[in-house]
This record gives sequence, C-alpha cells and structure tokens, in this order.
Amino acid sequence: MPPDWASSDELLLSLDPGQGRRAGLEGAIRDAIRDGRLGEGDPLPSTRALARDLGLARGTVAEAYAQLAAEGYLRSRPGAATRIASAAGAAPRRPTAERTGPAPERPRLSLRVGEPDVGAFPRREWARSLRHAVTTAADDALRLGDPRGSAPLRHALAGHVARTRGALVDPERVVVCAGFAHALAIVCASTRRAGATAIALEDPGVRQHRSIAGHGGLRVAPLPVDDAGAVVGELPDAQLAVVTPAHQFPLGATLSPARRHALLARARERDALLVEDDYDGEFRYDRHPVGALQGLAPDRVVYAGTASKTLAPALRLAWLVLPPALLEPALAAKADLGASPSTLDQLALADLLRRGAYERHLRRMRQRYKRRRDLLLRALAAAAPDLPIRGIAAGLHLTVELPDHDAELDLLQRARERSLELDGLTPFWHDPRRARAGLVLNYATPPEHAYAQAVAAVEAVLSGSSRPGA
Amino acid sequence: MPPDWASSDELLLSLDPGQGRRAGLEGAIRDAIRDGRLGEGDPLPSTRALARDLGLARGTVAEAYAQLAAEGYLRSRPGAATRIASAAGAAPRRPTAERTGPAPERPRLSLRVGEPDVGAFPRREWARSLRHAVTTAADDALRLGDPRGSAPLRHALAGHVARTRGALVDPERVVVCAGFAHALAIVCASTRRAGATAIALEDPGVRQHRSIAGHGGLRVAPLPVDDAGAVVGELPDAQLAVVTPAHQFPLGATLSPARRHALLARARERDALLVEDDYDGEFRYDRHPVGALQGLAPDRVVYAGTASKTLAPALRLAWLVLPPALLEPALAAKADLGASPSTLDQLALADLLRRGAYERHLRRMRQRYKRRRDLLLRALAAAAPDLPIRGIAAGLHLTVELPDHDAELDLLQRARERSLELDGLTPFWHDPRRARAGLVLNYATPPEHAYAQAVAAVEAVLSGSSRPGA
Repeated sequence: MPPDWASSDELLLSLDPGQGRRAGLEGAIRDAIRDGRLGEGDPLPSTRALARDLGLARGTVAEAYAQLAAEGYLRSRPGAATRIASAAGAAPRRPTAERTGPAPERPRLSLRVGEPDVGAFPRREWARSLRHAVTTAADDALRLGDPRGSAPLRHALAGHVARTRGALVDPERVVVCAGFAHALAIVCASTRRAGATAIALEDPGVRQHRSIAGHGGLRVAPLPVDDAGAVVGELPDAQLAVVTPAHQFPLGATLSPARRHALLARARERDALLVEDDYDGEFRYDRHPVGALQGLAPDRVVYAGTASKTLAPALRLAWLVLPPALLEPALAAKADLGASPSTLDQLALADLLRRGAYERHLRRMRQRYKRRRDLLLRALAAAAPDLPIRGIAAGLHLTVELPDHDAELDLLQRARERSLELDGLTPFWHDPRRARAGLVLNYATPPEHAYAQAVAAVEAVLSGSSRPGA
Repeated sequence: MPPDWASSDELLLSLDPGQGRRAGLEGAIRDAIRDGRLGEGDPLPSTRALARDLGLARGTVAEAYAQLAAEGYLRSRPGAATRIASAAGAAPRRPTAERTGPAPERPRLSLRVGEPDVGAFPRREWARSLRHAVTTAADDALRLGDPRGSAPLRHALAGHVARTRGALVDPERVVVCAGFAHALAIVCASTRRAGATAIALEDPGVRQHRSIAGHGGLRVAPLPVDDAGAVVGELPDAQLAVVTPAHQFPLGATLSPARRHALLARARERDALLVEDDYDGEFRYDRHPVGALQGLAPDRVVYAGTASKTLAPALRLAWLVLPPALLEPALAAKADLGASPSTLDQLALADLLRRGAYERHLRRMRQRYKRRRDLLLRALAAAAPDLPIRGIAAGLHLTVELPDHDAELDLLQRARERSLELDGLTPFWHDPRRARAGLVLNYATPPEHAYAQAVAAVEAVLSGSSRPGA
C-alpha cells in the first residue's frame, strides 16, 4: 500500500506526483482496477465531484474518464454513473470471488422442518407496511430507541398475543428480539446473571437451543418427553425450563391440562422459571385451541412468540413477554448481546397487525396448511396405514413413528434417491439412548405448486414400510 | 381462566354452554373486553370467518355483533373490520397501559454523541430499495439464509469498503451484523472460545463496549489515548484490542502512520488481534483521507463498519471483515448469540449501494456536516478562542478541552438551563484518575432547522470560559 494517499473521500487512489495530473489520475484508476479495489460495475464519482475532491479541473477528470473508457476500463452512458467495465486488462476483484455467489443447490423437494411456505409470504402487504413505516415514522424512531423495542409494536403484539393466545400481556414487558434464538440467548444470559446454573430443555428438541444455552453458561439437562408432552415427573433440577406446550417440537403432543398444572406447581416449588416456546401456536386445526401456559402463571412463565413461522424466518422478528422481575435483567443482557431488530421493521409489523393483515394472512395460511396436512395424512394412510402418526392437531409438521433406526435411515436414503429431503426423528434427541425412530414431515416447506408432487414422493417412499417390525 | 376453551383460532372466547349460542357469543366477547383481552381498536374476525371457526350460523354471529354494537362495545363501518369501541363498560386493557406510550421528552436542543442527523435519513431512497428487495427477492431469500449474511450485500459492501476505505475485502469473509455492538459481541465470543482472556479498549472510549466485552467473558484492560491516538507503547497485555484509527472516539485524533505501523508490529509480536472500529470513517473533511488500518494487515485486523452514522442507528446494520482464521469461530459465536438482521433489510442496503444512492447520500451528508462543523468552529472561536479544540478533521463530533472538571460540570449545567444537552468528556474514561475535562460536541445531532439555534446556544454557554484556568 502506498504510504501517501492523495485521493477523493470515496476513491482511495494513489496519484503519482511524478506524472501529469490527468495521466496520474488515469494511472491511479487503472491500478485500482488492476488490483481489484475497483471491480466490474462499480460506479465512479461524477466528474464534478471527483474534480472538487481532488482539487483538479473538471475537464481534467472528464478527459481521464474518456481516455479510460476508450481503453475499455470504464463504460459510461448519458445520464448514468460512469462504471468500471469488464476490461480485458482488469484483474478479477481481489481476492477472487463471484460478485453474486450462486444460490446453494436445494433439493428438488423438501419437507424438512423449520420453515413455513415462504412462497406465500405476503409480499404486497409487507411492502405496504414497510413503506408506511419508512414514510410516516417520526425522526425519533430512527434513533436508538427503547431497548424493549418500538412502542407501537409492543402494544400491537400485546393485543394480538392476548387475543389469540389467551396470554396476559403488559406491553411494557414485551421485548422485541431478532428471532427466537436471540430471545433464548437473552433469557439464558439474564437468568445466568441472577444465579441460574442449569436449564432443562425438552428431549427431543432443537439442537441449536442446547448450543445457545451452553454458550450462555448454563448446563443443559434433558427434560424427557412422551406422547403427552414434557414428562413433568422427570423435570430435572434446573432454574429454567423451556417447553413447547402447544405443539411439542418435534413430537407434536399438546401438553395436557393435568401436566400444565403439574408443571406450574413443580416450577413454583423449585422457584424455577418456565419459557413457553410458542413457535407455531397460531396454527391449530381442531376446534379446541389451547391458550398459552403463560396465561395461567404470568409471573412464572416467559412467553416467546415469533414471526418466523407466520411470515418468514428471514425477517428475524420474535417477542418475549416477561415476568416483571425478569425485565431489567433481560434488557441488560440484550444490551450486552448487542443486537436489536430494525425499528422500521418493527413499525412495519405493528402496521401489519394494526391493519388486520397479519391475522388475515394467518387465516389464509391456516387453511392452506390444514389442506396440506389432510393431503399428507391421506397419503400416509394409503402408503403405511399401520405406522403411528402424531402431532397433527397443530403447527406445520407431524411425525411418523418407525419401528427402528435402520428403517429411518433406509427411508431417508430412499427419499434422497427421489430428490426428496426429509428429517429423521433420531437426531432431535439429546440422549441417543432414548432416541425413538421416525420421520418429521413439515408439510409447510414445499412451495404450493410442488406440494402434490412432494406428497406423492412421500407416499412412494413409505409404501411397503407399513408394518411395524417388518 | 376458564378451564374449557371453545373458541375461534383467533379469539379465545369462553362460550358458556348454559347460554344460547348467540347469547353465549355475546357474553364471551363482553367478558374479553371487560377483562382487557380485547382492547379499543382491536379488530374482530369477519362474521363469515368466526361463524366457520365456531361452527355457528353466520347470521348468529352477525346478530351478536349487532347487539354488541348497539350496546356500545363494538363499532362497525361498511367495508371495514368490526372493532372494539371504547365502550363505557370496557375496562382498560389489563394490565393498564397506554396503547401508544408517549415519546420520552427530548431536550429542545442536543449535541450529544452517537447519532447522525436522522432528519436527513434518505427515506425515499430507502423505501425504494426496500420495495425492490421485497418485490424481487427470490423465495429462497425468505428462508434462514447464509449465516454470514446475504450474498448480494456482502459483495456490495466488499466493493464499497475496498473503494472508500482502502481495505482488502473478500466478500466471503464479510459478516453482516445487527449493529456494531452485536459485531463486537461476536468478536469477543469467538476470540474467547479460542482462548482469549483479555481485551484492550481505548481509554477514553465507549462505556457500553466495556460492558459487552465483560459479558463476553473478557477482562477489560484500558489502552491509553493521547492527542495522537492510541498510545501503542502502553498497549496492555491482551489477545484483542479495539481501536478507532480514523477518528479516535471521543478525542478525535487520527492515528499517525508511525503509530499504525508500531501498533501492527506490536500486535504481530504478541499474536494479538486488532479490531478497527471504523464508526465514522466515511466522514473526512480534509484532503487526506486515511485508509483503513485493515488494508495494511488483513490477517491481523478485523474491520468493522456500520450504517448507524451514515444512515440511521435504528436500521441496526453493521459489517465485519474477518481474517480467514476468525471466520468459522465468528459464525459459531453469531449462531449462539442468536441474532441476525433481516435479510430483506440486507437486500435493501445492497440495492442502495448498487444504485450509488448510498454514496450520493454520503456525499450530501459530508457537505452538510462540514458546513455544520465550520459554523461550530466559528462560534467556538468567537466564544472561547483559547480553548483547545480537537478531532475536527473527520467524523461527526469534535472535542473542546476544558481546564478542569468543575468547568465541565459548570458548563453542562449552564447548557441544561438553556435546554441544551451536551456530553462532558469525563464520563468516557475507564480510569477516572486519568480523566481529562472537556466537552464532546456532536454537530450531527440537531435537525437541520435547529442547527443555527443549537450553535448559538453553545456559543452563549461557552462565552466567558475562554481562559484555561480561569
């Protein structure tokens, strides 16, 4: 790197004092292109701006640009910025890399867990809410705002969560997060500061949550799950437990009323905190929606909701409703973890909720997912009528029980051969000795146009696997 | 909470089986309003939707709505959703809270640090880029994406940072973060895993960074700063050091070429990593922009840039350029910290960069801030010609040296009396024994229309404080 920079603010070009001004500028731009500091398509400043910044006559800059265009380094069109051309003499940008990396190859069909149908993302409504937020937000909303999140969103979420999930929500204790993983990291860090040393996580459950809790300094203790949800009698000794009462992930059970009460009683006895991961609570297909656990004990339960399943994971928006005692520690932890979602995105979600567009989208998606679930159930009944199926009352996925791990591996392999990507149940267990074999089928993943094909592929893969122990 | 829910998916209403259907629905909605689960302005589902969900005749629901509207609980307009009215019988939403909390009172005038002129945020351009992102992004972009951040943004940033800051940037090693605080938390967590135990932070510096590093498990060691920037000879023994070479925060010095080389040599000797916090590197007013330290030693220096000063802090967008060895540990740490910025925001920033709108905005703001700086310097020269002024070559703030801490407190008090909020220099020191007195004046903070008034207030406050030791 040359020791002296004599350059525009935006273009660190080293002008060689031994050359004339125009030649020096030309040489500097050529060098920048050759060594990759300027790459194909990069815009150059206007001649007026560069001339002012470098203290040159504007004509000098214009002549240098014209010369370099003639040499094939630059291309210019009237009314548009002069840009770097793909000149023969230009080196690839250093270090060599595609300007737009190829999208990673996705399998043709997938029912893997973790995503809604992103093809149904309400782009028009979201664009409208974003525009509303950007054009109407007060200037103050562009500053670093309330550490809990934007007030209009906290109020809109409080209403929504109370209405749809029966939770007790004070908007002053809503904390907006950049996804559930961020929310979990905040809860772990804040309880750790208050002296927590261990966290109970459902087994089976989400592998990433173990990593987040471990990074947060907590020992992870598995909380066994059976076909009625978390086994309260085996709740390990921990100051914190994360549960999925509405639709256990991944087994799909709804925590029974008796177990809900037992869980709360046990948590009270031990002075433990419960985190209710309500990741797909908005999607319930039977006539008996199950209110949030939080509504029974708002001082004992942290409620966590997310837009990842209702809108799209890429938005990175989630929310916590905290017991009063946890608010200040959680905000301190959030500050030290450093992240927050964009205030404009928060205002957009508030607008989507306020206009009723969020609930309209939920209603549409609930119908779509119910239809998809029913198609999948029909295919499973045809292909493998004897395999037990669980978790169908809610959410975006169901599980198919398999006789053993060999059957699971065999089916996953047969699926791959049909370009169908599925999740086996086994990897979701903390403790491999406890692991039960199965498939987790997320019927939300395929785009609408490919859904029938995906179901047909599942049916074909499962045909002949119908007898447990076969 | 009633034990049985017989309700719509979106409206957890408890229908009393002892009542008739219509009366039961009316009672359930009334109860929900009375106990605050439904609040003023909340929309109800359409009669068609609620009827289907509850298994009632649509006419029954319509009659219930009409009855409640007649009672003042609901209001309906043709073509719009039926909403909860502010009925006399309705309790305030439980727990009591303002639906839209009042904005915290801001002082009439402020030159406090940390913000650009948010009144100049390019709303039209940002809205255009957001719309472009939302309408043109591939469906794949709505899933959980590349843990480094969106590829188009990483490539656009690589070009921008290389061009404007002379850094050496491989887009494959750019990691997009939710603000610099998040970026710092990621770097701390990843170096901590690799065995780091201590971090050197400039003294004076940003208090929040000490908290983030401490939370990340690192011991914070102060790195003294003098009027030529970080004092390399006093670099404490630490595996990691954060520096602000372009414009020391808050003192404003530019790290001299000799010190840059000494710092790199010292870091190499100790196998320490440097983090270049380039928080306002895009704003330079003299003819000698200073390239990024990272350009001299890309394997030793983590470059950190942010949109907080160039666009708005509320966007929560920042970027790291990592040495190869730190990429994988940083992505593991980022996953465990849980947060990521919205992919759509990332695509919007990529579009803003690609269109040249980001650099046009920078150019406009650079002119505005230079004009503001010059006005402030004129006022300071008039009011207090003997007080040393530092850090004027770049960034959004300058510092005024004061003879002692009493003078600082006195001036802050006099400013407050004029509704003018300023930052004293003293609180930025880790070590109060080393603290020097002064004012940090951020000339970017006031909105454009109030700037002259803010400068006049500074001039009035400082008049009569011109003699050191007076």
